[in-house]
Amino acid sequence: MRPSGRDLSEMRPVSIETGITKHAEGACMIRVGDTHVLCTASVEERVPPFLKGGGQGWVTAEYGMLPRATTTRMRREASAGKQGGRTVEIQRLIGRSLRAGVDRQALGERQITVDCDVIQADGGTRCAAITGGWVALRLAVNRLLKAGDLTSDPLGEPVAAVSCGIYAGQPVVDLDYPEDSEAGVDGNFVMTGDGRLIEVQMSAEGQTFSRDQMTRLLDLAGDGVAQLAEAQRAAAA
Amino acid sequence: MRPSGRDLSEMRPVSIETGITKHAEGACMIRVGDTHVLCTASVEERVPPFLKGGGQGWVTAEYGMLPRATTTRMRREASAGKQGGRTVEIQRLIGRSLRAGVDRQALGERQITVDCDVIQADGGTRCAAITGGWVALRLAVNRLLKAGDLTSDPLGEPVAAVSCGIYAGQPVVDLDYPEDSEAGVDGNFVMTGDGRLIEVQMSAEGQTFSRDQMTRLLDLAGDGVAQLAEAQRAAAA
Amino acid sequence: MRPSGRDLSEMRPVSIETGITKHAEGACMIRVGDTHVLCTASVEERVPPFLKGGGQGWVTAEYGMLPRATTTRMRREASAGKQGGRTVEIQRLIGRSLRAGVDRQALGERQITVDCDVIQADGGTRCAAITGGWVALRLAVNRLLKAGDLTSDPLGEPVAAVSCGIYAGQPVVDLDYPEDSEAGVDGNFVMTGDGRLIEVQMSAEGQTFSRDQMTRLLDLAGDGVAQLAEAQRAAAA
Amino acid sequence: MRPSGRDLSEMRPVSIETGITKHAEGACMIRVGDTHVLCTASVEERVPPFLKGGGQGWVTAEYGMLPRATTTRMRREASAGKQGGRTVEIQRLIGRSLRAGVDRQALGERQITVDCDVIQADGGTRCAAITGGWVALRLAVNRLLKAGDLTSDPLGEPVAAVSCGIYAGQPVVDLDYPEDSEAGVDGNFVMTGDGRLIEVQMSAEGQTFSRDQMTRLLDLAGDGVAQLAEAQRAAAA
Amino acid sequence: MRPSGRDLSEMRPVSIETGITKHAEGACMIRVGDTHVLCTASVEERVPPFLKGGGQGWVTAEYGMLPRATTTRMRREASAGKQGGRTVEIQRLIGRSLRAGVDRQALGERQITVDCDVIQADGGTRCAAITGGWVALRLAVNRLLKAGDLTSDPLGEPVAAVSCGIYAGQPVVDLDYPEDSEAGVDGNFVMTGDGRLIEVQMSAEGQTFSRDQMTRLLDLAGDGVAQLAEAQRAAAA
Amino acid sequence: MRPSGRDLSEMRPVSIETGITKHAEGACMIRVGDTHVLCTASVEERVPPFLKGGGQGWVTAEYGMLPRATTTRMRREASAGKQGGRTVEIQRLIGRSLRAGVDRQALGERQITVDCDVIQADGGTRCAAITGGWVALRLAVNRLLKAGDLTSDPLGEPVAAVSCGIYAGQPVVDLDYPEDSEAGVDGNFVMTGDGRLIEVQMSAEGQTFSRDQMTRLLDLAGDGVAQLAEAQRAAAA
Repeated sequence: MRPSGRDLSEMRPVSIETGITKHAEGACMIRVGDTHVLCTASVEERVPPFLKGGGQGWVTAEYGMLPRATTTRMRREASAGKQGGRTVEIQRLIGRSLRAGVDRQALGERQITVDCDVIQADGGTRCAAITGGWVALRLAVNRLLKAGDLTSDPLGEPVAAVSCGIYAGQPVVDLDYPEDSEAGVDGNFVMTGDGRLIEVQMSAEGQTFSRDQMTRLLDLAGDGVAQLAEAQRAAAA
Repeated sequence: MRPSGRDLSEMRPVSIETGITKHAEGACMIRVGDTHVLCTASVEERVPPFLKGGGQGWVTAEYGMLPRATTTRMRREASAGKQGGRTVEIQRLIGRSLRAGVDRQALGERQITVDCDVIQADGGTRCAAITGGWVALRLAVNRLLKAGDLTSDPLGEPVAAVSCGIYAGQPVVDLDYPEDSEAGVDGNFVMTGDGRLIEVQMSAEGQTFSRDQMTRLLDLAGDGVAQLAEAQRAAAA
Repeated sequence: MRPSGRDLSEMRPVSIETGITKHAEGACMIRVGDTHVLCTASVEERVPPFLKGGGQGWVTAEYGMLPRATTTRMRREASAGKQGGRTVEIQRLIGRSLRAGVDRQALGERQITVDCDVIQADGGTRCAAITGGWVALRLAVNRLLKAGDLTSDPLGEPVAAVSCGIYAGQPVVDLDYPEDSEAGVDGNFVMTGDGRLIEVQMSAEGQTFSRDQMTRLLDLAGDGVAQLAEAQRAAAA
Repeated sequence: MRPSGRDLSEMRPVSIETGITKHAEGACMIRVGDTHVLCTASVEERVPPFLKGGGQGWVTAEYGMLPRATTTRMRREASAGKQGGRTVEIQRLIGRSLRAGVDRQALGERQITVDCDVIQADGGTRCAAITGGWVALRLAVNRLLKAGDLTSDPLGEPVAAVSCGIYAGQPVVDLDYPEDSEAGVDGNFVMTGDGRLIEVQMSAEGQTFSRDQMTRLLDLAGDGVAQLAEAQRAAAA
Repeated sequence: MRPSGRDLSEMRPVSIETGITKHAEGACMIRVGDTHVLCTASVEERVPPFLKGGGQGWVTAEYGMLPRATTTRMRREASAGKQGGRTVEIQRLIGRSLRAGVDRQALGERQITVDCDVIQADGGTRCAAITGGWVALRLAVNRLLKAGDLTSDPLGEPVAAVSCGIYAGQPVVDLDYPEDSEAGVDGNFVMTGDGRLIEVQMSAEGQTFSRDQMTRLLDLAGDGVAQLAEAQRAAAA
Repeated sequence: MRPSGRDLSEMRPVSIETGITKHAEGACMIRVGDTHVLCTASVEERVPPFLKGGGQGWVTAEYGMLPRATTTRMRREASAGKQGGRTVEIQRLIGRSLRAGVDRQALGERQITVDCDVIQADGGTRCAAITGGWVALRLAVNRLLKAGDLTSDPLGEPVAAVSCGIYAGQPVVDLDYPEDSEAGVDGNFVMTGDGRLIEVQMSAEGQTFSRDQMTRLLDLAGDGVAQLAEAQRAAAA
């Protein structure tokens, strides 16, 4: 029933490749099906003004898309002169999600910026960005721990995200672009590797959904995130 | 336990005043406790370019806050030269929420813009905006029906929204500002008057929440929206 | 002869309602006929950089219009990405006018920002903003005096403004929108309650006016401002 | 008593040089004392969208200042990314003033843009811009008449402007920079060569002025403009 | 003498990988040493307004850099709200360079946009962008030819670019970042595969260079471009 | 063969007029044929942040064009809200070129900003700006030397620039507008008065040029700059 032939609860294949750029403190290319996102983590020994002197660190994120990551070329945001509303929403979500998994006291007064740039898009880019972004963050923190700049580990369980939606009347997990553009109800679940919730965003366009469907979507998301967390642990080992 | 002394599942008093401006096709001032939002609906006999000639209408929303709606004065967005990320997120949410309750075919090729301007803020402004915005929309549609510009009613059940969160470890409904600024987990539920879901946005900052808590939040939201829908029906009658 | 049936020298009814918002140090809703402007005064214990350390205070103003304050919806300036030339002109005028009635030495090194937001427009919004803005300022200063933060009163006579113009060949006072949109010559007079001039702005579009007409306009303005000053004194008492 | 030694009612020397650029349809350099403004008039055979098809023309103006026209260098507006509030106010004033002296029906559906660029500033730049701008406009219209593109002359009496103010307690005309920076009350009068008023803008900063002073300022302005109009007629002959 | 141990006239290893994205009509990843640029060509069946109806096509380019392509993170241009002067200069250069090798009549009324995004930077990014951009363009044109949308080939000799400069007093070719940041004289040569010049940009910062040095730089550039053209032909074969 | 009747190697007449504005530390109006550029140099006793405390000075430049400097009116950049790509390129070139002739250590921690504003354009404005800009800079430095603010002269040989191009198949020097708009290959050479190169920018649009032509263009430029340097020395003497 799904265009890709997948089962309702079947994720796309996931790969996370590290060691892909020589400058960033942490980096990976995550591929979730045909969605490819390059994630880098940059460490700076300073925090934003509102945190100065408080002994706590900060994790923030930025998101972008190459103009031809999509089926037809999209206008470059730098040339349009501003980030669109969608971009701003997504990067706020990535930052919040990653921070939920960080002990900011343990991180100390430093900032880690996670950049997520979509090289090729086929649905679910923000989820891939969160999942890959956590790996980049993990690798950057590993380096700080190894260098002795950190004495206790500020990261706990992996943070990962998966999209879910109602496609052709059925709750499904990990929507690709053909599903995403058809689904009237869809959203994203950000969770930890041990099944706790960080962010739930379900949204209907021009229709509604029932409480039972919501329950099923939460189940699907939990299973999907558990699989992603395994891939994250393997990549950052 | 709540600063206001309310029960965990107790909403603030709600009033919806109509007939407050002479220009708009539909308008109301909604007051949810000390949160006051002026909502107007403006009808235009044209649709955005991407809908032209398709026979369908459009409903969109804009959101603003007077600079001194808040405890300390905030910078005016017009003078800052752009709408902040928070504003853009909120007005996209309002528009999506209202559209979920509209039969755009029945509306015909016209656009209704719902402006929600916060006169005084005390937590939950976006939920008040959705709830009051639907009343303004309802009044504008009533006028179109009365004038014979519409032959079938494009609106169904009321659309309303309520915030929920985890405050001092307990799921609570309809957070006011003192609660909102303390709650590590909070979000908004947009639903129809008959209990179907439109939008679920739960978000944790620096912590996580359990599946059981999510279930309780969904319960609280359902009860709260049912109360709001009654007030909406009364105001637009 | 006037569309409203008023005499040439007859003002619209004026009301000034205070106690309308819980956050601002001073606030009122002024209604001049169908023109309604919400004015708030916000006190900050700092001055702009160019005044730092000089012992003098500052009073400034900002002006805005809700999108549907007008007959047809106008584009929101925050979404357009900048304040239009008209807005900038008006808020500079309001700030200058209010400062003319302030002893900035007596105010001490603090800034008061007066926000004037038009809720409903029917001509003469900038004059209503000045007149109501002075009341908000007066109330905020009263609070500072009462709290002992000020020892001598920095405000003197009320500052108020009225529009005048030549409508159908006749000098008239306090133009409403139907007159304003027809008058080829119009402008604004800002004066003190005891009849001294602060600002005179008469402007012709596509025509000219005589020295005698100018004299008559000055007379009308003087009478109008005297009436407004009474309403201001009553409201701030 | 004036820093320059001039009498209270004495204007600075005025010269208007034409033939100074080969591209513009009309152009002059006006020098009022040490204030030098280059004015050009550009004719286009199109009108702004709001006038299309109505048979009427349009005259508009833009104003700028070279960065080092002033005693100390000012930031270039193009590099700051926008025109300041002062610039916008001035160019709106110039455009309105010039239009008051134009029969837009006789001009036909064409637009004339008058650019006024301050090469050297010493007070009164906006008045010099209006006075010189009218000469550039006159020369451009002369060319249209000569070419047969216009059959009746859309221009009547010259339009000129002079600043006045209260300096050291005395009403004076044509303020130079040392006076302008001291005067607490100053403004601009735009008039026709035969003494009719177009625009009156008197403004006090931190003080007020009397009705008698206003009368004296109107007298001074009338005499000053009469002198400017002679220089305009001579230059455009 | 060079930090990398290369000879004065020795280029870095070059590789051009195609087939790297599923959406673009033409695409490659070019690697010149540690400088990696992703180039895509997007075909649109429309031309910019100034070319409409003239029967000629257009080739344009945009350039960007991922924030962490560099040693330390650079601010994202989309978030800064504009493309910097350096970016604008570079993308104008890329567009001009590619157009020099295109028969725009033969291309017909369509536009090809070449996007060059730097994934990792180590000096010479604009040259790599031109060289890789031509391959993406070649592949997109090949597809149009194969599909019969083009009947004659609008592309001739490859267009490639190489940087040259004076490092430690010696003219050298293909500067990497350590050289680039030291060289007081450097620039770029864009040429065709058969040795004709398209663009010469040599620039000294705080010093000068001689006519003899210029001659040597032209020699080095010619040899370098010949090697690049071979790699381009192989990649696009 | 040239529209102006000049020989291939013949420059337009050059004049450099000083003493043209009372405010700037150095200033001149340079006229190269019908291209007229007003250049001012403004001295400030501070340097940009990145140089603070290093004991070195800075020279920077800004470039602008009056809207009607050209045959048809161009949009004012301040009103368009940003400097175009062409403007940014040109002012970066002017700044770099002038700095190549400055001993920044000898200049000490001060900044000189050279503003180049085109009053009338007829091709070659950026070259005239560099040539005239150097004279303004020279005059400002002379004043600093005379006042004893500088003890050793930070300027050496004059810096001047000339355009060259291939017009109707022939290399020519100092292109005027009719040539410039036809030439498919053109560019600019910045050199010192004693023949050393600072900047070479040759660029082809839609065609290519040979190594031999490049050699001839370098010869023409050398002769042209030598003539300009004489005019510069005479003007600044």
